[in-house]
Amino acid sequence: MHDRIRHAGMHDRLMSAEQAAALIKPGMTVAMSGFTGAGYPKAVPQALAARMEAAAATGDQFRIKVLTGASTAPELDGALAKANGMELRLPYQSDPALRERINNGEIDYVDMHLSHVAQHTWSGFFGNIDLAVIEVAGILEDGRLIPSSSVGNNKTWLEQADHIILEVNAFQPAGLEGMHDIYYGTALPPHRKPIPLTAPDERIGEPYLHVDPAKLLAVVTTDAPDRNSPFSAPDEASRQIAGHLLDFFDHEIKRGRLTKTLLPLQSGVGNIANAVLAALSEGGYEGLTAYTEVIQDGMLNLIRNGVIKMASATSFSLSAAGVKEFNENVDFYRTRILLRTQEISNHPELIRRLGVIAMNGMIEADIYGNVNSTHIAGSKVMNGIGGSGDFARNGSLSVFMSPSTAKNGSISGVVPMVSHVDHTEHDTMIIVTDQGLADLRGLAPKQRAQLIIDRCAHPDYAPMLQDYYDRARRESYGKHTPHLLTEALSWHDRLVETGNMRTQPDLQAVSATR
Amino acid sequence: MHDRIRHAGMHDRLMSAEQAAALIKPGMTVAMSGFTGAGYPKAVPQALAARMEAAAATGDQFRIKVLTGASTAPELDGALAKANGMELRLPYQSDPALRERINNGEIDYVDMHLSHVAQHTWSGFFGNIDLAVIEVAGILEDGRLIPSSSVGNNKTWLEQADHIILEVNAFQPAGLEGMHDIYYGTALPPHRKPIPLTAPDERIGEPYLHVDPAKLLAVVTTDAPDRNSPFSAPDEASRQIAGHLLDFFDHEIKRGRLTKTLLPLQSGVGNIANAVLAALSEGGYEGLTAYTEVIQDGMLNLIRNGVIKMASATSFSLSAAGVKEFNENVDFYRTRILLRTQEISNHPELIRRLGVIAMNGMIEADIYGNVNSTHIAGSKVMNGIGGSGDFARNGSLSVFMSPSTAKNGSISGVVPMVSHVDHTEHDTMIIVTDQGLADLRGLAPKQRAQLIIDRCAHPDYAPMLQDYYDRARRESYGKHTPHLLTEALSWHDRLVETGNMRTQPDLQAVSATR
Repeated sequence: MHDRIRHAGMHDRLMSAEQAAALIKPGMTVAMSGFTGAGYPKAVPQALAARMEAAAATGDQFRIKVLTGASTAPELDGALAKANGMELRLPYQSDPALRERINNGEIDYVDMHLSHVAQHTWSGFFGNIDLAVIEVAGILEDGRLIPSSSVGNNKTWLEQADHIILEVNAFQPAGLEGMHDIYYGTALPPHRKPIPLTAPDERIGEPYLHVDPAKLLAVVTTDAPDRNSPFSAPDEASRQIAGHLLDFFDHEIKRGRLTKTLLPLQSGVGNIANAVLAALSEGGYEGLTAYTEVIQDGMLNLIRNGVIKMASATSFSLSAAGVKEFNENVDFYRTRILLRTQEISNHPELIRRLGVIAMNGMIEADIYGNVNSTHIAGSKVMNGIGGSGDFARNGSLSVFMSPSTAKNGSISGVVPMVSHVDHTEHDTMIIVTDQGLADLRGLAPKQRAQLIIDRCAHPDYAPMLQDYYDRARRESYGKHTPHLLTEALSWHDRLVETGNMRTQPDLQAVSATR
Repeated sequence: MHDRIRHAGMHDRLMSAEQAAALIKPGMTVAMSGFTGAGYPKAVPQALAARMEAAAATGDQFRIKVLTGASTAPELDGALAKANGMELRLPYQSDPALRERINNGEIDYVDMHLSHVAQHTWSGFFGNIDLAVIEVAGILEDGRLIPSSSVGNNKTWLEQADHIILEVNAFQPAGLEGMHDIYYGTALPPHRKPIPLTAPDERIGEPYLHVDPAKLLAVVTTDAPDRNSPFSAPDEASRQIAGHLLDFFDHEIKRGRLTKTLLPLQSGVGNIANAVLAALSEGGYEGLTAYTEVIQDGMLNLIRNGVIKMASATSFSLSAAGVKEFNENVDFYRTRILLRTQEISNHPELIRRLGVIAMNGMIEADIYGNVNSTHIAGSKVMNGIGGSGDFARNGSLSVFMSPSTAKNGSISGVVPMVSHVDHTEHDTMIIVTDQGLADLRGLAPKQRAQLIIDRCAHPDYAPMLQDYYDRARRESYGKHTPHLLTEALSWHDRLVETGNMRTQPDLQAVSATR
């Protein structure tokens, strides 16, 4: 471990996770590292959860506010949620135990654009940050920090927190050193300057994080992998979605609106994203770039085979096999991957300038192209908006993708009105399902509605949507965005009440009117 | 007029509005100047409307697609709407006759972020632009154009249209020359560079628009004022809203989150905006700046008395008295006002960098802070989103303001669920009504809901909102964003059915349960 902690003075701060966790007091605002299950602290949160459970056993409540980069893992969000130790959580989560607490109304969750978190912290919108717990891959002789497998908001947490606990994780490959680009040119207005980045492969910062040694309370050593993100081969629906999107790219290239190297890609995580990346490889693309949040297995493959020549992100999200591939070839990847802070990876200025092609999953779209990325039936949060809004609003193309049905056909990916809006009609250009692709650019609401029904809806739901839309066009109060207010959310209500958006009587009624 | 048309060759293209209008053919996509009722062509559209009406009288349909900067006036949108001469209109409108056609389902209207229009045009998303009709204040000896009282998308229309018709309006003061800053450094990705603007008073372009003489088909002379924007003294509700906002600024200054010169102001148009500007003047502020879309009377007053030392915008929107004041003192204002293209006035990169304080009106907010800026009862469009999304998403503060009731109390400005979402919960920081101000920064949905009900709802509606929210917290499917799906839009349905969101039986029922 001494080769990871090269700064002599830091050895004095070495302590156990339990000792470090004892520095955290009830009511504190604690900022932690972590983004898409990478680079989060692995020991201190679990020791803290044990203290919280001990407090609960004696009738005391021990809860803190927890800020991170994005989602973490069972060792952090899971452990603290099970211990009922969080009163507030932001800006993103994807943990089952935490999600359940949030949807039971037990934890306040602030679901934010990921590009906003750092500047809202600098501006004092979250109050004082008492403590930061940050995983790093090592500490240099001069005290600078080698970042871990994610950067996220770590620069901000190290600067803004009153005190710091570091976790030095020996499991993270030493070869990570040099892969990061930490930009120290940010400021609060009116002192901001243009961010001098004009291509994904440009370095504008330095490979290390700074920390004020006077604020450093504890150094804890760990040796544990990140949460593995399971990677499964794309299913049929994902492959169909990818196929429609690749056809669209071909069409845009033929029209001269894109070149064969496209524009920098942003890709969400998951099955559909992996399918799109695989399709790019099969489609003969090469020399592409990515300006995105996360490097997942699909993107690692594309970097490996040269389809993507360079990727900028703020974090990894790899399977066990992906971690092995990465660790064994870290020297190869270090020249082709840059990890940045999340205020830079998701910055509107840069996404707009680079003309990023934003490709994100969704829960549902409505017939007018409003997109719900976060809520089931309007009230139950799934994960959060993450960076999808940063990319969709500012990208040169904004694509939202979903299977046309979910849960064995009981849920439609296209509904009359979304139950929660995360991306408005003004922000969505392309909607894709396994059924097809709707290009909404330059279209008015009624043009969009017919195209989305025709191209994207599942055959089981298309007649129901057409029926709604036809009646809305006749009976709606206004005919700009026709809606039937008493029926617009009825599909979600039916889902909650019956477990199915589709009911047999409904289908018969539709058939009878046609 | 010869002093306005100094280029010798342009005299050959002089013709009547009727002759110029005859160059416009059915089905064409025609881009026109105009932004908030300023700088729109005044003669050719009316001559065109006459041709359309003549065609209709013989049973022919003569319709075109019309693109502008933002709203225009009766001579353009009004005339073409009455002639039923538009099949598609974008990106913004506020004309009564046009609005009626749109809400009758007779015109397709694409309601867009104003910062997106130019780049979507460059990217070919709207297809070919056949013709542009642009008002200017004059033509230089070398053929460059002196822009008029708005810039909007004129640079883009002049570059992208196949052919050009100019209207040279002698009514626009000659002193406008030199007040504009037209940035010619934009490009499509991957060729974009940082936009070198770091303060509202910086010039990054040149005072003139370029035009390719080979594309110029016609020059038409006019001598007519812009649509006057009526200015009335702020009413009581507007003054109360302004008071709450100024108290908030004081609070932020005391906390050290703002300085006495604030940050560059963006202000929508209308009564509330004028009240806020008047309050800034009474509040002893000085040396402020504005980075906004529109200079209205209230801002002109503040420039006059030194409260605002410099304002950047893309257009004027003045009353008759404001026009007189401006024209008589144009040399004074020319050193304190810069008019830019709308892709620069509304650019996310610049709004974010400058840390603009975004202050916009709204139709309604819901208890979770989602904002509806565009639709009545979910289906009938009022005006459009305009630049509010550009500023709210990227500003250092995003404020939305509305009276707590409208139409003699029959409509509440706070509802259980907005009937249309233009700004999501992720984008709204401050909600203000005459009742008070809700600071939503760093708050989770349920915290926001109680604060908005307590601070912003009208006393007639607060118990109804509290009742909804209390029942939703008990009965909602998820408890993250509690909602009752069958009731969430019932207020709007009641408004459509009865003309009132509030019903006497409802109020009694609420009283009985408390």
